[in-house]
Amino acid sequence: MGAKGEKTRQKILEDAAELFHTKGFGATSVRDLLQVTGMTKGSLYFHFSGKDEIGLEYLRQAGERFMAFLDEGLEGPSAVEKLDNFLQQAFAYHRARGFVGGCLFGNTALETSDTAPAFARVTAATFNQWRKKLAVIIEQAQNDGTVCRIRSADELAEFVIAALEGGIMQSRLHKSEAPMRNCVETLRMMLYSDKTDLQPHKPH
Amino acid sequence: MGAKGEKTRQKILEDAAELFHTKGFGATSVRDLLQVTGMTKGSLYFHFSGKDEIGLEYLRQAGERFMAFLDEGLEGPSAVEKLDNFLQQAFAYHRARGFVGGCLFGNTALETSDTAPAFARVTAATFNQWRKKLAVIIEQAQNDGTVCRIRSADELAEFVIAALEGGIMQSRLHKSEAPMRNCVETLRMMLYSDKTDLQPHKPH
Repeated sequence: MGAKGEKTRQKILEDAAELFHTKGFGATSVRDLLQVTGMTKGSLYFHFSGKDEIGLEYLRQAGERFMAFLDEGLEGPSAVEKLDNFLQQAFAYHRARGFVGGCLFGNTALETSDTAPAFARVTAATFNQWRKKLAVIIEQAQNDGTVCRIRSADELAEFVIAALEGGIMQSRLHKSEAPMRNCVETLRMMLYSDKTDLQPHKPH
Repeated sequence: MGAKGEKTRQKILEDAAELFHTKGFGATSVRDLLQVTGMTKGSLYFHFSGKDEIGLEYLRQAGERFMAFLDEGLEGPSAVEKLDNFLQQAFAYHRARGFVGGCLFGNTALETSDTAPAFARVTAATFNQWRKKLAVIIEQAQNDGTVCRIRSADELAEFVIAALEGGIMQSRLHKSEAPMRNCVETLRMMLYSDKTDLQPHKPH
């Protein structure tokens, strides 16, 4: 496919983003996609084999963007500051969106785990990459003595992701920043060995 | 409605349970409901005003059953043992189901938070009741000195729910008990002040 075809594919994916984030992959119909893209069925099917290919390609690209967000968030002068920056950026990201839409990967996990294996596989791969990136930083911080050693780095990474996903879910449900803020604050209190200079959460 | 009508309503709700748990409320169609109940449309609509009333009534009753499960789980000779029994029973419940279906309230939160306010309200009320029941036990355990005081009882209760929901999500996605087991074990390590006689997680 030439540059123009690639551009059209990308535009379809961009137009569909809002639908996938709020309705989910299953509830988004071909009719929804035609309406939001303004395309004919023939034209849409020239670029993608169907709704599932559009959804899966969207999910894959979103996974790549999330890894870039992670690499950006996991920055800082020390491992524990990298972790802390990430926690604060994750909170700021969802807060800026008014806790609408939630986490695409969490939503897709719940939507597709039992019913759509192809979607579940891409989602599981994204969570695995996320866990590995966090575990590297947490292990460094454990070696520095700045993060507790009550569990292995990999176990703490998995736990951080679970708590964040649950916090996002609760903030989205109650349309309040309090649950996710509480998750981030409690994680910080539980994980960091030295709490004496723990700054209050930045985004107020 | 007489006893027979009430019995039919309950049978409709029971027949629909599997659909609501695996497909969700939005993706369950009236056609699905007719198929699973074996009823005609006229007969179904005699008992309920429509799909939403069936879903909402199912969700309300499931909330009541969950509160009974909580009261049963939150038993034990001391507050911290009540909390620990609950954590272990929550794990055992989802493990017995092979992590299929997940948590109805978590699923419904993600499915309906942005799109179906009536469902989101019932779900939020269930989570609030859950949080309050846990907070009572956690406060008692904090007063006993058996649960840490790094956060208030209400904040810890909210955090426990978020971490469990995230753990259920990850176990369901990866079809492995490891993520939820890790969540429960990490919560136990983080929350309990005295870890010296912490028994390994019972259900192996």
